[in-house]
Amino acid sequence: MQQPTFFEGPEKKIELVVAPGGGPKLRSLGDEVWSRVVELARAQILSVIRDAHCDAYLLSESSLFVYDDHLTMITCGRTRLVDAALHLVELVGARHVALLVYQRKNEHFPEQQPSTFYEDAERLHAVVPGRALRFGDEHDHHVHVFHGTRPYVAEPSDTTLEILMHGLRPEAAAQFIGIEPPNGSTIAERTGISKILPGFAIDEHAFTPAGYSMNALRDGTYYTIHVTPEELGSYVSFETNADVGGQVDAVVARALEVFRPTSFDVVTFAPMGTPEEEVRPEGFVVRDRVAASFGGYDVAFWHFSAPREGVRAPIELAL
Amino acid sequence: MQQPTFFEGPEKKIELVVAPGGGPKLRSLGDEVWSRVVELARAQILSVIRDAHCDAYLLSESSLFVYDDHLTMITCGRTRLVDAALHLVELVGARHVALLVYQRKNEHFPEQQPSTFYEDAERLHAVVPGRALRFGDEHDHHVHVFHGTRPYVAEPSDTTLEILMHGLRPEAAAQFIGIEPPNGSTIAERTGISKILPGFAIDEHAFTPAGYSMNALRDGTYYTIHVTPEELGSYVSFETNADVGGQVDAVVARALEVFRPTSFDVVTFAPMGTPEEEVRPEGFVVRDRVAASFGGYDVAFWHFSAPREGVRAPIELAL
Repeated sequence: MQQPTFFEGPEKKIELVVAPGGGPKLRSLGDEVWSRVVELARAQILSVIRDAHCDAYLLSESSLFVYDDHLTMITCGRTRLVDAALHLVELVGARHVALLVYQRKNEHFPEQQPSTFYEDAERLHAVVPGRALRFGDEHDHHVHVFHGTRPYVAEPSDTTLEILMHGLRPEAAAQFIGIEPPNGSTIAERTGISKILPGFAIDEHAFTPAGYSMNALRDGTYYTIHVTPEELGSYVSFETNADVGGQVDAVVARALEVFRPTSFDVVTFAPMGTPEEEVRPEGFVVRDRVAASFGGYDVAFWHFSAPREGVRAPIELAL
Repeated sequence: MQQPTFFEGPEKKIELVVAPGGGPKLRSLGDEVWSRVVELARAQILSVIRDAHCDAYLLSESSLFVYDDHLTMITCGRTRLVDAALHLVELVGARHVALLVYQRKNEHFPEQQPSTFYEDAERLHAVVPGRALRFGDEHDHHVHVFHGTRPYVAEPSDTTLEILMHGLRPEAAAQFIGIEPPNGSTIAERTGISKILPGFAIDEHAFTPAGYSMNALRDGTYYTIHVTPEELGSYVSFETNADVGGQVDAVVARALEVFRPTSFDVVTFAPMGTPEEEVRPEGFVVRDRVAASFGGYDVAFWHFSAPREGVRAPIELAL
């Protein structure tokens, strides 16, 4: 029998690019500014790793990657990422915002969120005029995306891959519940996570009693994984800005092997005109596919699920 | 471009059976009592049809069927059906409640609801001890069910069939937007609804600017249909207590023909030990199947969707 406690894994995310000549380099703002930004979202910085290009903050609820001229911030739980986004726009100055993308994955428990996507989009629209889109059905997996409509040209290698996985099989979820402290090897090595994209510096955190977060960094390229293993809403997100053009299918296959979800979504951002990726995960069927071009990117959404056989028992919620 | 207005089609439902000798016949309580019950749920009675066994009320948000010893009440939108349920338990006396089942379909916009299923179940559990179950995944179609745990034996013909349809194809939805007043024929006849189960007296209501509700009654047997045709969350529910044993598949096929959903769920209640129904809708695949026995019934949940081909554009929400 399940206790009706839960943790909301599905994330909110912002991407913000500062226009050339638009104020100070973001990394020069210093940790105090980033602590404040993270606090506004109702999260905290747990740790940071840095390289020549990127400061990668591991948060109590997900991650923040700061570059000199752009940043990616991802938060889960009941965080208020839109408050951080509005503060960032003010910090940078709305006229210097070259690109703003705000995304929300469909939540497991949307009634527990402090705001709806639409409310968030209206607040962002007031400072950075833009559009609000839904990729996928309202009664099925979907992502909502707000994007500013200022013209923007993405760099050729500026891609993003998100793999958003639901309903982990129990043996995969169990690896992230009551995690023992690493002994010689990292949790990423022990679970196979470090093989999804090899050769990265890894910053990881195990949560008590359950849960796992990690940032990986190599030459300004990141990947990040956040695991909510609890049965009442198990979920894992994988995201990378590595240029995996032509290899999306292979990276997806490696992530599926570690986390063994029963359904998942893939979201890709690629510079406009990039050849389309084929994603054909073995043992899954396509349930939806949505595509659009905006903000200099071709954006694609796929929703996959494994066919289910036989009859299950219901989940009982403890009263 | 869509306005972000919406109507929540997915319903809440109660079934309540009064133990033999447990106070006055429900139908004898009179319309004033039922008006009060309906008001507590934040709905209103629009009209009523009656036969020797049942008073069938059409509501501003769905339907109420009152028999001498049991009732079924279904409400959609942002109604507070649990308040009506608690009032009914008080009216009947908790010790006279032979069976209480409270069900909630996964909503399109759960953040707009006045309470969660779990909160409702806790309130009911305080007066009628029971269990709370979820049929289906938290990130996919599901129904939540609370049921009292007092032993109960269902009558042999006491079955319920629910067909809960999402994402109507536009030409099917269009029939229920800006409905012209009937001219000689009923809307049920014009749309093919009256052929799903023929030979019933029909009470129907067209909503402005869109939407449709109907109750059908024949010898104490009902069926009821509620249509939310708006693109941002289109939905139709069909429910009947007709004994359709062995014909569930055929009734489902007729409902699908009228409403042309892209995905739908079937929920059946049948007296424990009834032979299992086969449901194999043409052009759909089974995405989930969950079954349990409680309260004297075998309860089954199926989730179906039509495979989707090609690539769609996202939905734009007007800001």
